[in-house]
Amino acid sequence: MNPADLERFSQTTLLQAGLDELDAALASSLLVLADTWGVFTHGTKNLRGYLRRVHGGGIRPQARPRLTAEGPAWAIVDGDQALGMVASSYAMGVAIRKARVAGLGYVGLTHTCHFGAAGAYSVMAAREGLLGWAMSNDTPTVTAPGARGPVLGSNPFSFAAPIAGEEPLLLDFATSTVAGGKVFSAAAHGQSIPTGWVVDAEGRPTTDPTVWPHAGTLTPMAGHKGYGLALMIETLSAVATNGPALADVLSWSFADPSLPTGHSAAFLAMDIAALPHGREFSQRMAATVNQIRSLPKAAGAERILVPGQREWEKRRRAWVSGLDMPSDVLDVLRQLATETGIELPSRG
Amino acid sequence: MNPADLERFSQTTLLQAGLDELDAALASSLLVLADTWGVFTHGTKNLRGYLRRVHGGGIRPQARPRLTAEGPAWAIVDGDQALGMVASSYAMGVAIRKARVAGLGYVGLTHTCHFGAAGAYSVMAAREGLLGWAMSNDTPTVTAPGARGPVLGSNPFSFAAPIAGEEPLLLDFATSTVAGGKVFSAAAHGQSIPTGWVVDAEGRPTTDPTVWPHAGTLTPMAGHKGYGLALMIETLSAVATNGPALADVLSWSFADPSLPTGHSAAFLAMDIAALPHGREFSQRMAATVNQIRSLPKAAGAERILVPGQREWEKRRRAWVSGLDMPSDVLDVLRQLATETGIELPSRG
Repeated sequence: MNPADLERFSQTTLLQAGLDELDAALASSLLVLADTWGVFTHGTKNLRGYLRRVHGGGIRPQARPRLTAEGPAWAIVDGDQALGMVASSYAMGVAIRKARVAGLGYVGLTHTCHFGAAGAYSVMAAREGLLGWAMSNDTPTVTAPGARGPVLGSNPFSFAAPIAGEEPLLLDFATSTVAGGKVFSAAAHGQSIPTGWVVDAEGRPTTDPTVWPHAGTLTPMAGHKGYGLALMIETLSAVATNGPALADVLSWSFADPSLPTGHSAAFLAMDIAALPHGREFSQRMAATVNQIRSLPKAAGAERILVPGQREWEKRRRAWVSGLDMPSDVLDVLRQLATETGIELPSRG
Repeated sequence: MNPADLERFSQTTLLQAGLDELDAALASSLLVLADTWGVFTHGTKNLRGYLRRVHGGGIRPQARPRLTAEGPAWAIVDGDQALGMVASSYAMGVAIRKARVAGLGYVGLTHTCHFGAAGAYSVMAAREGLLGWAMSNDTPTVTAPGARGPVLGSNPFSFAAPIAGEEPLLLDFATSTVAGGKVFSAAAHGQSIPTGWVVDAEGRPTTDPTVWPHAGTLTPMAGHKGYGLALMIETLSAVATNGPALADVLSWSFADPSLPTGHSAAFLAMDIAALPHGREFSQRMAATVNQIRSLPKAAGAERILVPGQREWEKRRRAWVSGLDMPSDVLDVLRQLATETGIELPSRG
């Protein structure tokens, strides 16, 4: 599928649901960005669920995120129950503006929904020559050491930095061992999952993806380290902004669509150009990553990749040769096409 | 051993090596803080190695870390080859000052040495009611996906936040699967290590701790996620400050003691009290962590701990009942006592 065609399809569905043209275009570009990275669990596959919440009232199509408080290097944004992509892009833009003046900017965002791929926002900063961070809380699906059931969301973390001569360094990960979307995908494809991804209702390891989320819980990445990072993200997103935390955050896909989910998020930007030798930062990044790439390879490994490299390569291929969409994503998009009467682009 | 006695022993050795009283007291309190947390790999065990470098010339006992550039929410500090604890405390202090004015502060520190326990600095911010972060690069000892040997240091990351009515939330971890000090400790105790901590020179998993570091490499925590976090820390510490990166950073314990190691570090602070409802932040943190503690326990688990809780409990016990020092730490301290002629406190 041509990514541009997919963007237009997404835009049309969002316009039909009552979003403005700019918001529809922005959100669609971010969803397709995730698809072209190969992160199909966070792309247009989720559009149908978001639209269900727009129609239900839990997401407001005409929402206007607004700055409710600010200082020299920080701001709080009320997302006004906008689509996650709309509120989060606005918040990251404020973080970048703050960083351009103070050198560093933090923006806490409340009253938003699932924001999709965290990397979509950190990359906004990196493309403007800044360092960027994005993170968000989510409904609890991940357990913690000593606990039996869900404690925190799979709270994603992302960092991006400009590299001279290539696309930004891009780190984007769930603080669970794997993102819940990967467990869904395995279930949809009838595959089993590796031990260690999910524990069942008694806390025992399982290879059956279908127990999640009703009778199983994701595990935190690297045990107490992932638990700690997830709690740091909860702190910056929700506790710092006085937003709902832990189980007060609802599932964007399962909860009653008339309800706001209460997600919060945090964005940081750092204007590296303001620092001494800051203008040469991206050259130094290039030297650093190229030095890593030139190190001795493990047996059987052809390359040492830097974070984000695989995703940017996939994106380039998608724009040249088209997106090769997994069947579970295509199924959802076809359902959406049927429900909206909007034609899905052909595979050509 | 009484922690206060151990602090005095450490101070005396540092004074003898030419440090000022204030620097000696500050560094000693941070090293004993790590010991009382039970993080013996980052406490007074390392004092002998630091002092060897002071005598060799690689660490300057009379160094004066100084601010070389600053903006509203950031600063760069030249560590002047000071002991890591001295330069890092100064840098964290600057980050806190910046945050008190702008809301947020980043300080990049160059020309420093191994800074010990990252949590010692993030806690400085939390004890003043701010959020704090500390991280540092280190000589490469950790491999990356696709690589055969060391790529990045075990670059530690720490976050701390105030909690009403108790010690701060404290997250402090190496981005390797385990810190190198734990591998040394296993080797010193003649123990084997779990598969997954270390790979040998060909990149194969091994349970023999003695291969590290000369013929083995630590693994990154959670694979590509730990690798990405370590590279983020390298970026904020070294690339952002124009400091030495990757293999240009020397080992604080193995390299010629006449040489500066070239470590860099990064510190962030956020003045949460400046935000709306910021004065109640620590109460909200308390509510959040208490909610987590009250969740259903896993079979066999008595408690769900929050990050840092175990360390603070150990510290309280150490001050009440004395520090129970591992034999490998005592051995090093006894050697140091012999070399300096300074009497080691008795175990009483």
